[in-house]
Amino acid sequence: MLYRKWGTEKDPVLWYTSSYQDDTEILEQVKLVMKAHVVELFLSGYISREACRILIQGINAFKEIGKNYEDIHEALEDHLLKFAGDFGGMVGFGRSRNDHVATALRLKMREELISLLEELLQLRGTLIRRAQDETTTLFPSFTHFQPAQPTSFGHYLLYVEEELAQRWEMIFSALRLVNRSPLGSGAVVGTSVALNREREANILGFEGVITNTISATSSRADLISASMEVGVLMLVLSRVAEDLILLSSKLTNIIQLPDEHVSTSSLMPQKRNAVTMEILRAKTSEVLGALMTLSSIYKSLPSGYNLDLQEMNPEYWAILSEARKAVYILHDLLSKLRVRDPKLDVETLSTDEAESRVKGDVSYRTAYFEVAKSLREGSFRPSLTFEDSLARKAVKGSPNPSKMRESIMEVKNRLETHERVLNEYKNLILKGIGELRSMEDDILQEGS
Amino acid sequence: MLYRKWGTEKDPVLWYTSSYQDDTEILEQVKLVMKAHVVELFLSGYISREACRILIQGINAFKEIGKNYEDIHEALEDHLLKFAGDFGGMVGFGRSRNDHVATALRLKMREELISLLEELLQLRGTLIRRAQDETTTLFPSFTHFQPAQPTSFGHYLLYVEEELAQRWEMIFSALRLVNRSPLGSGAVVGTSVALNREREANILGFEGVITNTISATSSRADLISASMEVGVLMLVLSRVAEDLILLSSKLTNIIQLPDEHVSTSSLMPQKRNAVTMEILRAKTSEVLGALMTLSSIYKSLPSGYNLDLQEMNPEYWAILSEARKAVYILHDLLSKLRVRDPKLDVETLSTDEAESRVKGDVSYRTAYFEVAKSLREGSFRPSLTFEDSLARKAVKGSPNPSKMRESIMEVKNRLETHERVLNEYKNLILKGIGELRSMEDDILQEGS
Amino acid sequence: MLYRKWGTEKDPVLWYTSSYQDDTEILEQVKLVMKAHVVELFLSGYISREACRILIQGINAFKEIGKNYEDIHEALEDHLLKFAGDFGGMVGFGRSRNDHVATALRLKMREELISLLEELLQLRGTLIRRAQDETTTLFPSFTHFQPAQPTSFGHYLLYVEEELAQRWEMIFSALRLVNRSPLGSGAVVGTSVALNREREANILGFEGVITNTISATSSRADLISASMEVGVLMLVLSRVAEDLILLSSKLTNIIQLPDEHVSTSSLMPQKRNAVTMEILRAKTSEVLGALMTLSSIYKSLPSGYNLDLQEMNPEYWAILSEARKAVYILHDLLSKLRVRDPKLDVETLSTDEAESRVKGDVSYRTAYFEVAKSLREGSFRPSLTFEDSLARKAVKGSPNPSKMRESIMEVKNRLETHERVLNEYKNLILKGIGELRSMEDDILQEGS
Amino acid sequence: MLYRKWGTEKDPVLWYTSSYQDDTEILEQVKLVMKAHVVELFLSGYISREACRILIQGINAFKEIGKNYEDIHEALEDHLLKFAGDFGGMVGFGRSRNDHVATALRLKMREELISLLEELLQLRGTLIRRAQDETTTLFPSFTHFQPAQPTSFGHYLLYVEEELAQRWEMIFSALRLVNRSPLGSGAVVGTSVALNREREANILGFEGVITNTISATSSRADLISASMEVGVLMLVLSRVAEDLILLSSKLTNIIQLPDEHVSTSSLMPQKRNAVTMEILRAKTSEVLGALMTLSSIYKSLPSGYNLDLQEMNPEYWAILSEARKAVYILHDLLSKLRVRDPKLDVETLSTDEAESRVKGDVSYRTAYFEVAKSLREGSFRPSLTFEDSLARKAVKGSPNPSKMRESIMEVKNRLETHERVLNEYKNLILKGIGELRSMEDDILQEGS
Repeated sequence: MLYRKWGTEKDPVLWYTSSYQDDTEILEQVKLVMKAHVVELFLSGYISREACRILIQGINAFKEIGKNYEDIHEALEDHLLKFAGDFGGMVGFGRSRNDHVATALRLKMREELISLLEELLQLRGTLIRRAQDETTTLFPSFTHFQPAQPTSFGHYLLYVEEELAQRWEMIFSALRLVNRSPLGSGAVVGTSVALNREREANILGFEGVITNTISATSSRADLISASMEVGVLMLVLSRVAEDLILLSSKLTNIIQLPDEHVSTSSLMPQKRNAVTMEILRAKTSEVLGALMTLSSIYKSLPSGYNLDLQEMNPEYWAILSEARKAVYILHDLLSKLRVRDPKLDVETLSTDEAESRVKGDVSYRTAYFEVAKSLREGSFRPSLTFEDSLARKAVKGSPNPSKMRESIMEVKNRLETHERVLNEYKNLILKGIGELRSMEDDILQEGS
Repeated sequence: MLYRKWGTEKDPVLWYTSSYQDDTEILEQVKLVMKAHVVELFLSGYISREACRILIQGINAFKEIGKNYEDIHEALEDHLLKFAGDFGGMVGFGRSRNDHVATALRLKMREELISLLEELLQLRGTLIRRAQDETTTLFPSFTHFQPAQPTSFGHYLLYVEEELAQRWEMIFSALRLVNRSPLGSGAVVGTSVALNREREANILGFEGVITNTISATSSRADLISASMEVGVLMLVLSRVAEDLILLSSKLTNIIQLPDEHVSTSSLMPQKRNAVTMEILRAKTSEVLGALMTLSSIYKSLPSGYNLDLQEMNPEYWAILSEARKAVYILHDLLSKLRVRDPKLDVETLSTDEAESRVKGDVSYRTAYFEVAKSLREGSFRPSLTFEDSLARKAVKGSPNPSKMRESIMEVKNRLETHERVLNEYKNLILKGIGELRSMEDDILQEGS
Repeated sequence: MLYRKWGTEKDPVLWYTSSYQDDTEILEQVKLVMKAHVVELFLSGYISREACRILIQGINAFKEIGKNYEDIHEALEDHLLKFAGDFGGMVGFGRSRNDHVATALRLKMREELISLLEELLQLRGTLIRRAQDETTTLFPSFTHFQPAQPTSFGHYLLYVEEELAQRWEMIFSALRLVNRSPLGSGAVVGTSVALNREREANILGFEGVITNTISATSSRADLISASMEVGVLMLVLSRVAEDLILLSSKLTNIIQLPDEHVSTSSLMPQKRNAVTMEILRAKTSEVLGALMTLSSIYKSLPSGYNLDLQEMNPEYWAILSEARKAVYILHDLLSKLRVRDPKLDVETLSTDEAESRVKGDVSYRTAYFEVAKSLREGSFRPSLTFEDSLARKAVKGSPNPSKMRESIMEVKNRLETHERVLNEYKNLILKGIGELRSMEDDILQEGS
Repeated sequence: MLYRKWGTEKDPVLWYTSSYQDDTEILEQVKLVMKAHVVELFLSGYISREACRILIQGINAFKEIGKNYEDIHEALEDHLLKFAGDFGGMVGFGRSRNDHVATALRLKMREELISLLEELLQLRGTLIRRAQDETTTLFPSFTHFQPAQPTSFGHYLLYVEEELAQRWEMIFSALRLVNRSPLGSGAVVGTSVALNREREANILGFEGVITNTISATSSRADLISASMEVGVLMLVLSRVAEDLILLSSKLTNIIQLPDEHVSTSSLMPQKRNAVTMEILRAKTSEVLGALMTLSSIYKSLPSGYNLDLQEMNPEYWAILSEARKAVYILHDLLSKLRVRDPKLDVETLSTDEAESRVKGDVSYRTAYFEVAKSLREGSFRPSLTFEDSLARKAVKGSPNPSKMRESIMEVKNRLETHERVLNEYKNLILKGIGELRSMEDDILQEGS
């Protein structure tokens, strides 16, 4: 305990409110923020080069958060006071836990979002490659979990890619808002210490500064927005997981899951349960729960920092971590999945049949009722094959193999664009961080 | 009942599943989609100009959804069959309720999002204008609902503007994904009718086509994402509402709410309750509940259309409607709100005091403990005034009046950019829709 | 507008906060509460018999809530002021909207819960009757949506009944807490008017009084608890709905849904979609969303009445109404459902086979691995039939027909107990209400 | 890995689905269930006394779950196979992970609920004792966070007690449903091994058996219901926390929090933040999130065990653990809290004043408008004191000190009843468990 002049190591504040364990998640980010802060104190003339050097050494020497601290910020400052003596007394100058934690959270979220975006690019690449090989592999489509019309497995894979591409774009938009700097905003209204907030933002690789200091220190809306977009991604994945569970059941037997995604029963030796997809499905609900926790904490919280915000932190990382794992596990499964038997029923040709009968005074609805009648009477005999059904599809985005080839060209281009955009964005971040690193190196070397 | 050959007007399907009431919300959009469909059937040579004309007349004559239909799509087709005879039998050609409702939902969501974005621009304009006039009006800042450091009312108003500007950007990103066309995708795998999906998209003012037909017909992820971003906006508003409730209480008495936002008690005549803000706070929870409904319906739903998706529709409109009303009511209140008494306590100068004592061998932590001691002992006498406190703030985004002027320039520019971007986007939409309207006019006139 | 001396008919308070529409749901209950209040004012000597008579006539004459009122309570009092002149000025004596609405909500919730409990008893009766007839109808059991071991359709029906019986008990427990009277508690700390709260409770059929007046006027915890228990019921129903959707798919084709629960596609004439069960599934999510709204509104609300509580009211009735409809629709479906083909696979006998091989030095795990090996090698030939499998089950609650008969006896007894308990409870309520009715009759007659 | 004949120690099933870490929470319960199972195998003649003895020794020797297992059940069986050789092969006889985990979860939940109920009894005892001492300590009441009418601090404390008493009853009702045995139900339809399910239930201290085996193995509705009731408790606590945060703010300064519940700022030395109550408030949202996770996982899950159910387990314990901590921390705070200054405003006497003026032809509404007018004109001078206000309250449950004494008698009686009921219930459980323990002792001793 550093700041309070009351309480003990066992008091309710420490026991019930300390975040020292959760803060391990942001240890590196908090150290980086403190480094940027002491470099800025040096550059703006508040501390000497020597003080800066020793403080950087102290920050680098900080390895773990003792449990007798309210949080990592108190622990780090106390460590620096012990490590650097009077120099340590200056790290609290113009700095609050509020702006430092807000900055560290954004750095961490930035990393997490970029990792997730990269995983998604990998998965999308695999989906496109497999779709190319499976353009003519027959596969059922469904509506209401009833067999609808014939399609190809490649068409299904492109569906998944299309869904992921949209989520990628929203997550990238969220990343850009997250990647703005609150540093230098003090506790809530800034500070009389003349910190150059733009310079601080630059050396931490941020795209810009969150101007208003109340917003900078106490808003978590960008982090919530990013979490929500990741939640939408999980919803998308959960639908795919459900498809895979239902279509790999012994009852339907349409697809074959790879052995390493299947478990059995301790009592019933015949069982092959789609356990990884069941867990992915459940993890989606965990993410929804975490979103509800975030929303419910944030709703109606008075402006300015409140300690409630601390309890949001583990939820962000849980959401991002589960999403990354889910993308990874689904990638592994989809790269090995194979269609066992499309189980196509001739009835699924009834729409094509009706469409083919439209001419002259036979309208679609008339043809539809004719076909419906023959289906009810058991006399339905389609005039086309499943392969014909695909080949006749005449619209963009359909499973007609020639349309599929066009779609594949389009989605390849989109994927390449996304890859390029992300790489350029990462380079901008690395450039900023690189400046901080080289200043650090300079300062440390001169002292040696 | 049109499609089924079983059931009665009173059967459980109609009684329990019909969406005819909720579909009133998308009546105009469904008619517009059907118009684009019949125009496309004409342009691609499937129906005659005369058929097209009569069908357009029929669509224009459709005014309400009878309760004996499963939904608006069945009702509209039945109406057209009655209005246009055999011509009516062709509207089902290459069209499914699945692609038509997906298209109508996106048209409606596009409208709703644009309205909300416009309301937000209005509110942000007011906030900036008022902030300019209130740069020197003293106001307390808070953390943990405890008085923190002095600030100005203008600074608080810019905080709100900053929060809204970020939400504006995410909602605009969501709008762009929403504004893509599913039309021509049939029930799930497209159709053998050679509809030109890009032309359809163009005349409905869409930015592009959702390529894959499974995604086009059964995905609601873009709509969920837009709803979630609106949910984050509500969370932001709810924090402002909470501030206003707490600071207008007789207990704190810092701000004065306009009379027209205040109600009283039937038993206690002295009461002035901040009822509009209480409702805004509660409506935020309603929106969170609606997001949970959307997420929980969507999670693990097998791919392809399922009727569960229908139950999501009223939730979208409830969310958007509540958000627009909340922005409107808050705009009304904030434009009239005035500060009664900032109730600033000299203790809120303790940080400035400590910062001012840092020099030579007095580090910040040393100065902080000195001030803390004088506070505990009741001997704290600051060497500066509240006005000094503001004037000394040295960082970007702080309430220092000169920094405030810079901030105001920045946010004005951002607001103007957003206004321009939205106008350009609306013009693109109007251009597409205008083409459809002029084709409609041509076709209708020739028939007369 | 009655209480405020500011504002207009179009001001934000009325436009944004009025509950006059939602209050229609509790119109009868609010009138009943007011009647109990004026009778109590008479019995405790505050108003004359004549005043009481005219006020009761006025209450009975109140038919609808004008839109220029904040809520029904203001509208009713204004109506009584107009109807009964000076007598009307006394209805506000010792009464607040806070205690009156709290009482009306509990009366309404009591009715709703009792209706739901009765619907559940009906459904459970049907389940037990059908189970008796289907004890030997083969049916698959599932785990992980993979076929597990053979069972009977009757066993499945008893599973549903068992689930409902537990929910019935919790909902009944919740009812008892709901059915306690807040009346006479004023706005928050009671009143100097000497109302006999126990007498008021008695004539409204309450089981007792909520003593503390802060709790009585501002707590909604009992209503939330009841809503949550109804939510758990919906979760239970949603699992059954899912079973019915999956097992009636053309892909599995195990059960046959009644025609009147099935719809078709506008494009694909072969479709038979389980639409009522899809809606039930989606409605479960709506109920979850409503629970989240309730919880999020209530969380961290300062004690005492806040207008946020008003926004909870429509959620209660939505939850209860959807639950009652869901029980009704499922009842209709389950009473007509038939098994088409259990599709039992011999592999589902592998557990029985392994269990039958245990003897001497053949442990279960040894037998299990033997059977597992023969399954993998395709050489598995069970030594028993599906009927043997059922007959050999040796534990309570299993599908062994003789065990089933014992289970049916048990659940019949439980059902009869529940029926009796509910009837007795209803009679207690009717007795109280009957006293109020007869006092009302006396008072009205004497005046005539 | 024991049951599968494929996969490796690093395969996705183990990496992504293993619950070995979460299962630590139910280690003791799983061992107890296994013990009951082997004792039952012995009592029903399937294994020898010696086998039973060695297996019990093996169970007692099981200390931790290796990470190469899917779950604790596989780990324990593998351990027993290694410890007890062929005897170990029999523990899988008539047992599935499904019935064993269902039983262990109920045992664990039983313990957790009882602990929580005991903590609540402690807190309620303190509230009643403090209320007795604070019947005349003036305190404000609030509605809409506006000062309402004067009350006493004791009245506020009794409000909290009343709220907790209702939650206690619902949690106890939930406990009774939880405390029923699924053991002996196999994977889903029971087993051909003739286990005596009632005997098993008895020696585990259960109140009875869940008859139907599908319900027994795959239902989590009782656990969800218990979790929901605990969630309602948290909602109740969060309102008290909010009161304490708002009333201890420097802005209102009505109550004084104990030092050990207050923290300060690293930048602003004057701050005294109500951090324990902020965390309690946030933890309530965590619990709501966990409830949403539970509900969303469970909704529409096909009947029978699915691995998704496994992911619900950590949520139960998180909910219960947070609730117990919240009750504890609030107990600590409330036992030390003191009123600093009730800050009562004479305006809060306006209702009493209006009530006192009612006589003859002055109705309440007339008096109310008179008082309202004098309030607006600043001429309001009440004819009574704050103490008079309390003393005049004439209804049950109000802060009138004599009414308070009656209330205290009532709630003391209720508390004593609840204490007795819980003790008797615990004794019944201990009796059952005691029988198992003494059988175990007998079997172990004979072998020694």
